[in-house]
Amino acid sequence: MCEKQEKGKMKVVETIKEMKEMSNRLSFEGKSVGLVPTMGALHEGHLSLVRASVNENDVTIVSIFVNPMQFGQGEDFDQYPRTLQEDMEKLLPLNTDVVFAPAMDIIYPEGFNTHIEVRKLSDKLCGAFRPVHFGGVATVVTKLFNITKPAKAYFGLKDYQQTLIIKKMVKDLNMDVEVITCPTIREKDGLAMSSRNKYLTSEERKDALLINKALTKVKRGIEEGSISTDKASEKLREILCTGSHITDIQYASAYDPETLEEINGKSFVGRSILLAIALKAGKTRLIDNISVNLNR
Amino acid sequence: MCEKQEKGKMKVVETIKEMKEMSNRLSFEGKSVGLVPTMGALHEGHLSLVRASVNENDVTIVSIFVNPMQFGQGEDFDQYPRTLQEDMEKLLPLNTDVVFAPAMDIIYPEGFNTHIEVRKLSDKLCGAFRPVHFGGVATVVTKLFNITKPAKAYFGLKDYQQTLIIKKMVKDLNMDVEVITCPTIREKDGLAMSSRNKYLTSEERKDALLINKALTKVKRGIEEGSISTDKASEKLREILCTGSHITDIQYASAYDPETLEEINGKSFVGRSILLAIALKAGKTRLIDNISVNLNR
Repeated sequence: MCEKQEKGKMKVVETIKEMKEMSNRLSFEGKSVGLVPTMGALHEGHLSLVRASVNENDVTIVSIFVNPMQFGQGEDFDQYPRTLQEDMEKLLPLNTDVVFAPAMDIIYPEGFNTHIEVRKLSDKLCGAFRPVHFGGVATVVTKLFNITKPAKAYFGLKDYQQTLIIKKMVKDLNMDVEVITCPTIREKDGLAMSSRNKYLTSEERKDALLINKALTKVKRGIEEGSISTDKASEKLREILCTGSHITDIQYASAYDPETLEEINGKSFVGRSILLAIALKAGKTRLIDNISVNLNR
Repeated sequence: MCEKQEKGKMKVVETIKEMKEMSNRLSFEGKSVGLVPTMGALHEGHLSLVRASVNENDVTIVSIFVNPMQFGQGEDFDQYPRTLQEDMEKLLPLNTDVVFAPAMDIIYPEGFNTHIEVRKLSDKLCGAFRPVHFGGVATVVTKLFNITKPAKAYFGLKDYQQTLIIKKMVKDLNMDVEVITCPTIREKDGLAMSSRNKYLTSEERKDALLINKALTKVKRGIEEGSISTDKASEKLREILCTGSHITDIQYASAYDPETLEEINGKSFVGRSILLAIALKAGKTRLIDNISVNLNR
């Protein structure tokens, strides 16, 4: 405890009471709080959010909490990487002010029973395959907002659907938080950074590169006019299917970036569309997406 | 609009933007806000909440909004009494500071889709007969909390289950609101005040008195030891059934005041129990409850 309580100027908070006292004090002092909610196992994607927050707010709080409510039965909650010490070493040089790292029973004490659901948006794409996922995300994010009282909260666009759902929840429930989205950060070879990339064997990782390859190739095709949007799914799958370790393509197509409805020949000229993919490489579920601009 | 914009010092606010600006300003000035959420058609029950709030806070906001989300299909949303002008005349002499009276599409703009659910507690008692009710209550109360930022919010114990659900939601979601419950206010003849009493014919109203009669008689019996708690339901129903306009007894029994589980011979010595009733007098649904102290 002592060891991690203070690291330079970075404070580690483990209880809701202490975190609330701090956020109330900051609010009283007129200091703006930026929140970066994470499940730890931090990579450059997370760190880009932290940098944005440090840049735009008086105080940056990074929460680290592997949220059981957003994992379904048979998903990887138990094996999800927990690397608190390394995470803190990555956060310290970025001038993170506070790491909020509560234990599970602090966030979900016995008898916890309140659930937030953003309907419609939560049923689409990942939601169709992970039925409890976005309800768990919405619920824990609301708790984190109430505990840390951020003016701004930062989310990466790799989890595009998540950003859309959180924005919708904030709007619907009249929360006083500005949801800031930041670009997907990729490895040099194009693979979108994800804490789950650690699960991949080197063979699986090679095939995982097909995701970004498919997205960028079909994006270019659509923008150049050589691929029509209603052929997007077919073209994405053609590329993905060349990977022998791609075991389950859950979705791969062109979607309305606001409703997440699949685009079937509808006119999107003058707007943007979303190409999005979820699949399994071996047993590891990976997602990625890219925005296609049809302003031509 | 002009006519109701200012009544003495009482301000009427109709938009979320204006209400939020005001509550943010009050918060900045360090003034405590008390919120009394209502659906209008105000009676002495509501006014007792307003008096409590005025007494305990710098500023009292009374919200008046007939919340469609808490009415099920076939319930009385359309005919629910709307008496804004009379309501304001009742609120003015109590030194109410603000009436927040938004239109429906202000609270639920097109595409609204976020829902809060307090599981388990919401399935019991009234929830078993009104499956969407408490989700609608939890959702609108969350919105009102986010819009008005109260330090304290006031609810009447006539809606006992509602108070329990809101307290649970506040705890589970780490909201910064103290939920204050106030006693049920009754007519001189014992009928619990309710905006729905207006629906009753004089014959139905006579029979409705059996509710309080049953509750007080069985309470006395239990406290004196002449009625055992597992006979509570039978004894309540015996009395209620003497009313020819009592058409549907939805529940009438003794319950654990924390879990709302029916008490079936369990020992509650040293604790309190809840006697609660829901029934229809004619077509009008009425509820009431009373606390029984077993400290003997």
